[in-house]
Amino acid sequence: MKNKKTNVAVGEKNKNKSGSQLRQDLVTGDWVVIATGRGKRPSDFAGKEKKEKESAKDIEKCLFCDPTASGQEEDVLIYTTGKGDWTLRIFPNKYPAFTRPSGGRINHKEEGPYFWMDGVGYHEVILTRDHFKHIGLMDPIWVAEILDAYQTRYLDLMNKKSVRYIEIFHNHGKKAGASISHPHSQLAAVPVVSPYIRIELDGSEEYYRSHKKCVFCDMIEWELSHGKRVVFENDDFVVITPFASRTAFEMWVLPKKHESYFERISDEEKISGGEALHEAIRRAGKILSEPDFNFYLHTSPCDGRDYPHYHWHIEILPKTSTWAGFELSTGIEVSAIEPEDSAKYLREV
Amino acid sequence: MKNKKTNVAVGEKNKNKSGSQLRQDLVTGDWVVIATGRGKRPSDFAGKEKKEKESAKDIEKCLFCDPTASGQEEDVLIYTTGKGDWTLRIFPNKYPAFTRPSGGRINHKEEGPYFWMDGVGYHEVILTRDHFKHIGLMDPIWVAEILDAYQTRYLDLMNKKSVRYIEIFHNHGKKAGASISHPHSQLAAVPVVSPYIRIELDGSEEYYRSHKKCVFCDMIEWELSHGKRVVFENDDFVVITPFASRTAFEMWVLPKKHESYFERISDEEKISGGEALHEAIRRAGKILSEPDFNFYLHTSPCDGRDYPHYHWHIEILPKTSTWAGFELSTGIEVSAIEPEDSAKYLREV
Repeated sequence: MKNKKTNVAVGEKNKNKSGSQLRQDLVTGDWVVIATGRGKRPSDFAGKEKKEKESAKDIEKCLFCDPTASGQEEDVLIYTTGKGDWTLRIFPNKYPAFTRPSGGRINHKEEGPYFWMDGVGYHEVILTRDHFKHIGLMDPIWVAEILDAYQTRYLDLMNKKSVRYIEIFHNHGKKAGASISHPHSQLAAVPVVSPYIRIELDGSEEYYRSHKKCVFCDMIEWELSHGKRVVFENDDFVVITPFASRTAFEMWVLPKKHESYFERISDEEKISGGEALHEAIRRAGKILSEPDFNFYLHTSPCDGRDYPHYHWHIEILPKTSTWAGFELSTGIEVSAIEPEDSAKYLREV
Repeated sequence: MKNKKTNVAVGEKNKNKSGSQLRQDLVTGDWVVIATGRGKRPSDFAGKEKKEKESAKDIEKCLFCDPTASGQEEDVLIYTTGKGDWTLRIFPNKYPAFTRPSGGRINHKEEGPYFWMDGVGYHEVILTRDHFKHIGLMDPIWVAEILDAYQTRYLDLMNKKSVRYIEIFHNHGKKAGASISHPHSQLAAVPVVSPYIRIELDGSEEYYRSHKKCVFCDMIEWELSHGKRVVFENDDFVVITPFASRTAFEMWVLPKKHESYFERISDEEKISGGEALHEAIRRAGKILSEPDFNFYLHTSPCDGRDYPHYHWHIEILPKTSTWAGFELSTGIEVSAIEPEDSAKYLREV
């Protein structure tokens, strides 16, 4: 503090070097930074650390290879083959983030200026059988079964009294926050509509009011006619790297036909949607050397209100970076590759 | 898909086990989940991996121990001792997320339905000398010098034409996104007000309208009279674990006196604020075995408008968890310890 400080003329040499762009998300209005100054290639986004190969002993200890033996909660739903072997099962999370409601009432409490309420809800694990085959590696028909499982549980839980939103999400790998390596999704039926969903609902409603069209439908139309951010498409779905990607190699899986409610997905769409989700994750795996990843489903709340302007979809985030101080402070993510470039890599693999 | 699915009665055994709470942030209105079911102790939040001890060779290769020799950009500001040794220096980030403005104009462009603009701004590194002493380990008087450096650069950059907000943040350790281990802060002067700041500005303005008081002042008054979330205080500052902590051991450093603008910090407040920041990080280091951490400063924008209802502060996030699918999807963070408990540990260390 008592030290002398000297102002020095700012060097000019790095002016404009990075060619940074601020892009606005069409739905939320939020900005992202695309800073490509370091000229990265896909291999720069793949984890540098050597992946520990799991030994036979690790697999023996896997809590999800035989969930009954490892003392998981009782199954809510089981899918079996004709021979009675299980292929997929769903059971309550043993360490739930939300407490199962015991009565009808949710307690709301105050502490001075603050508010809190009981964290009631349903928190379940959706488990597929093969320890080594994540969604990008399994046969796409099994991904259709996963979507069927999501829908079945959704339809059961959406009418529970305390449930206003059902989160469906998937963490793969330690860096993506998965504590168990065996592939599994999770479902959390919760009593509040989360801030991120609220922002998307508000944004799409506002767009609908001013454009008389769904913002996602407009986006899909532009992307399909334009092509440069399209990774994969089939009859019912398209996979794109969004214009305002928050993370390198982010992808969205969008149903082409306008639909606000995931729970209305048809059997045919489970097959084509399963293929699209499989293709997205398979391609990220090839390009980024099997990265850890998260994906989650965004759909309309089940709070008794109508959301005709919303358009359900899945967002996939390969784990290519860490949220650091800037992102934590601002909510503005910095991505080091243009989504047009990442789409090209993902399309051509 | 063709498999048989069987609905099974849900076991009742884990009902209410977790005792989960949804707490609402008083400023933003957002919810966080406090799920303490796993009964964690501080050691559960400390990184399990053995920290690689840096060798003399690693230090030799440090790009920041001698920034001139390693080819960093030219200094903008240097603090030196009476003998001419540097203690702190500030220079442009060699790989900036924002491009230095070259002319007066920022280009706004459209692509179909989308908008983007040049990512212009100033991105600087604020470097202290000792490779091994982060803010929690150095003498607090040097933290006062860091706050002085923040202020000096802030006052210079806030009047630049394209600058609407100045982010000041600090990443420590790989898991917190720091690519260089040598302690340093960063500053990014940017042309947009970020979503997180906007949410806090709007929330505090609304609170001011309905309560005729600053929401942060109300919080500080409650916390000081109540004590259970107070970690440290001196004449000018208080360190608390916020009621709706998003992360285990999150801390806020708040000036006790209402002040909307960080850049008005006095020399005395730099000393007491430096002590408070030092104490917060020192204590987290003790309790969590020197965790990686981020902190950032939230203050009013420098966009020519007045923000009398806002109250500047610093938020500190020890890296105790990973954002996974649920957090990424919802923006609702799940913390596994009550802030009252983490404050107790931090206070008593």
